[in-house]
Amino acid sequence: MNQASTNEREVIAALDIGSNSFHLIVARIVDGSLQTLHKVKQRVRLAQGLSADGTLNQAAIDRAKDTLKQMAQTLQDVPESNVRVVATYTLRKAKNVQDFLNQVESVFPYPIEIIPGKEEARLIYQGIAHTVAGDDNRLVVDIGGGSTEFIIGHHFTPLKLNSRSMGCVSFTEQYFPQGKITERHFQKAILAAEQELEHIADEYKAVGWKQAHGTSGTIKAIREAIIQNGWSDGDIHAKHLEKLKQTLITFENINNINIPGVSEHRRPVLAGGLAVLIAAFDSLNIRSMRYEDAALREGVLYEMEDRFQHEDIRERTVESLSQRYAIDTQQAARVHTSANYIFEQVANEWQLNKKDFQQLLGWAAQLHEVGLHIHSTGYHKHSAYILEHTDMPGFNVEQQQAVATLVRYHRKKLKPTELTNFNYYKTQKILRLVRILRIATMLNLRRIEGYLPKYKVAVTNEALSIDFPKAFLQQHPLLEADLMTEATMQTDAGFEFTFS
Amino acid sequence: MNQASTNEREVIAALDIGSNSFHLIVARIVDGSLQTLHKVKQRVRLAQGLSADGTLNQAAIDRAKDTLKQMAQTLQDVPESNVRVVATYTLRKAKNVQDFLNQVESVFPYPIEIIPGKEEARLIYQGIAHTVAGDDNRLVVDIGGGSTEFIIGHHFTPLKLNSRSMGCVSFTEQYFPQGKITERHFQKAILAAEQELEHIADEYKAVGWKQAHGTSGTIKAIREAIIQNGWSDGDIHAKHLEKLKQTLITFENINNINIPGVSEHRRPVLAGGLAVLIAAFDSLNIRSMRYEDAALREGVLYEMEDRFQHEDIRERTVESLSQRYAIDTQQAARVHTSANYIFEQVANEWQLNKKDFQQLLGWAAQLHEVGLHIHSTGYHKHSAYILEHTDMPGFNVEQQQAVATLVRYHRKKLKPTELTNFNYYKTQKILRLVRILRIATMLNLRRIEGYLPKYKVAVTNEALSIDFPKAFLQQHPLLEADLMTEATMQTDAGFEFTFS
Repeated sequence: MNQASTNEREVIAALDIGSNSFHLIVARIVDGSLQTLHKVKQRVRLAQGLSADGTLNQAAIDRAKDTLKQMAQTLQDVPESNVRVVATYTLRKAKNVQDFLNQVESVFPYPIEIIPGKEEARLIYQGIAHTVAGDDNRLVVDIGGGSTEFIIGHHFTPLKLNSRSMGCVSFTEQYFPQGKITERHFQKAILAAEQELEHIADEYKAVGWKQAHGTSGTIKAIREAIIQNGWSDGDIHAKHLEKLKQTLITFENINNINIPGVSEHRRPVLAGGLAVLIAAFDSLNIRSMRYEDAALREGVLYEMEDRFQHEDIRERTVESLSQRYAIDTQQAARVHTSANYIFEQVANEWQLNKKDFQQLLGWAAQLHEVGLHIHSTGYHKHSAYILEHTDMPGFNVEQQQAVATLVRYHRKKLKPTELTNFNYYKTQKILRLVRILRIATMLNLRRIEGYLPKYKVAVTNEALSIDFPKAFLQQHPLLEADLMTEATMQTDAGFEFTFS
Repeated sequence: MNQASTNEREVIAALDIGSNSFHLIVARIVDGSLQTLHKVKQRVRLAQGLSADGTLNQAAIDRAKDTLKQMAQTLQDVPESNVRVVATYTLRKAKNVQDFLNQVESVFPYPIEIIPGKEEARLIYQGIAHTVAGDDNRLVVDIGGGSTEFIIGHHFTPLKLNSRSMGCVSFTEQYFPQGKITERHFQKAILAAEQELEHIADEYKAVGWKQAHGTSGTIKAIREAIIQNGWSDGDIHAKHLEKLKQTLITFENINNINIPGVSEHRRPVLAGGLAVLIAAFDSLNIRSMRYEDAALREGVLYEMEDRFQHEDIRERTVESLSQRYAIDTQQAARVHTSANYIFEQVANEWQLNKKDFQQLLGWAAQLHEVGLHIHSTGYHKHSAYILEHTDMPGFNVEQQQAVATLVRYHRKKLKPTELTNFNYYKTQKILRLVRILRIATMLNLRRIEGYLPKYKVAVTNEALSIDFPKAFLQQHPLLEADLMTEATMQTDAGFEFTFS
């Protein structure tokens, strides 16, 4: 890589498609710290467009589209591979997310990664860990538009990660009908938030922390209000929240709120956010909280920098799952080797780039047997179940789904129509990887070393063929029978697979 | 318990509803050994009635019904609670099993327990372990009508358990079309059986054994044929199997088979059974095999005797799962205590007997959090998934399904219409247990000790009410809110739940 491209590479950008606001940050990493070049925040209030049945309405999609179009212009000068875009609660929940992604694609050419709640929490903590020093455990609370994250961490390691389905937009909508602010409405909202926290509160208190940190616009606005009112010159205490609640009640309706330091855009969602924060203070016995500017987008940026340095947290995730589910790592390695051997031979023809697809195939090869922990019968289904539902730090929703899909269809019947839709990876390419993994596992069914010769794999369109050295198959009739079975299953799935 | 009933109790009976034959054994346990009082074997060839789409045809159901009617008469003098009836492969696979059970109920009043393949293997091994002495590892092979079990065990402990979907009835049907016996048909059948064994063979050989034992009618008949032909006076060797195969081929069709020692009933299924045994010898490098008379039914009887002595293997299963999934046992114990406390108060009115239902509720209470191993979000679903699919030694299919169901619906939405049908337990009673478990877990959401007062639980028909000491709920508004949420969910499910 020449000097010019190295320099270019150092400009990186992260966009957080939040449920309340979209945040874009363009930065340079200098000596391990972020040097912000550009910051944009746009209030889109996506969560407001999420109906009770889980559909995101067209008005919200249009608002998002307009904003993303602007942001794409801002991103023009950043190399495409240095941009990472994450989306959280609202797109996690929206049933018509596929429709959203299709509509947005024309104006915003970057892949949008929807990340799970715990992954959001982990990334927020990365943002804090890189910007706030300290040797003690710390609690971080981030109140978003649709979800609130609670993290306890120590140095760079998160100890507890949780994302709860409550946020400043959704709680204001749900508990302050027609915008009416009353003591009773606050009580209900606070109690509901406390119910959300009930079963994690004791656990969090048991782990403990020294300083509580708050991130996100809600907490920033609350802090501003407290300072402007002269109640405090910085830290947030429970008594300030109570005072602010009483103040809000005097306005009677969110449309009348007029508090110095609280912007016009923040007012419509302040009541719900405040209720969540009061419940957090109460349930977790928080004495005081400090506001921090870093959050999800900073976490994303620092993680990008880590990946440049080849410290991909996803590798650690795969290793830790492999240990946790007591995988036969020798067998996993054999399958991985065969999968790579096949991949190298077909990658060009099938347009599978190393960065995305070989990595994906490798993770699936390493994890395809996690389901044996549950039962050997139908273990591919158990593997997929586990990988779909477990925490996979560093993986976005689509990556996690892709690994689960590869594992799900690596043996037995192949049903292309049952696959979920893949946006970034494209379903056709996922199917190609599935077929590579199927053959790689089948060639290693005997679980022994050094039994496979060199062989040639070739593809023409979707047709795949393997060529073994002369007489090899005659000497291994069981493998030949397995290949025959596999050929039948691929034919049933509409694919040609031949061998000799 | 008086002397008379103890004596009565000692006569026990087991019926094995196999895919080829039904075996009934009535016995007495004297000094830890079985004293057989009565044995009945009826060829029903149930597996033959199983169509490719998984439906059991009416002719097979009628044959089963006739046989069970006779057997019910034989069982008349055995106390009902001393009879255990297990069913294997064909009823495991039959889609219309519910129809089968309904039709049979009128003539055969005993509960029929469908057991999973691995449980079948475990019970077969129990039969061998109690009747064959030896200090070395042993391999046991049992070729049934629809499945074949492979077990390695040491003393009373099974080390490897496997059930493969291949049997003497199904393999003869599939690989010897129109009953034609040819070298080519044998080759195909043997290869298919070897494919079934491919991925366990190396593992089994690695564990190793000294003596191989064969059980089941197939192996008994093969041994008889070998002896009658003068090839061996007892043990079965690979070369005998090859000779027998050649002999069978000379008959050209299964209808012409005429071998001394092989009964008329055995002939139609001998070819498939022989192919499976040849594959087993080949894949596992078995040198010689000894036939043993004990099998599944004996295993069932010995296990009944163990349960009388309060050594219920199911307790061990629950404990081992609890360890394996690193359950918070203190929390499980708290929920278990509350569940029992409620159960005792409602058992009479709700007709829930201790033996069946309190035990079931206890297992569910101990295991309801296994799913946390996968993820905390929706952990009740993960718990149910694990408990549905994992091995649970000692549990029959319905018991396992019942525990999984209790755990599935112990929190969040209750959907009575989604429940599977329970024959023995009755769906209505399972729902009652679900509601007890829901309240027991909800009362312990805070995961702390000594916080609950005494409370009264009462039921009238399906309506349930809890009465706490005065002022308790006012002092615990969060619990009150939780009870309110629960009341709403029970109402949505069509149940009345009140509290004060």
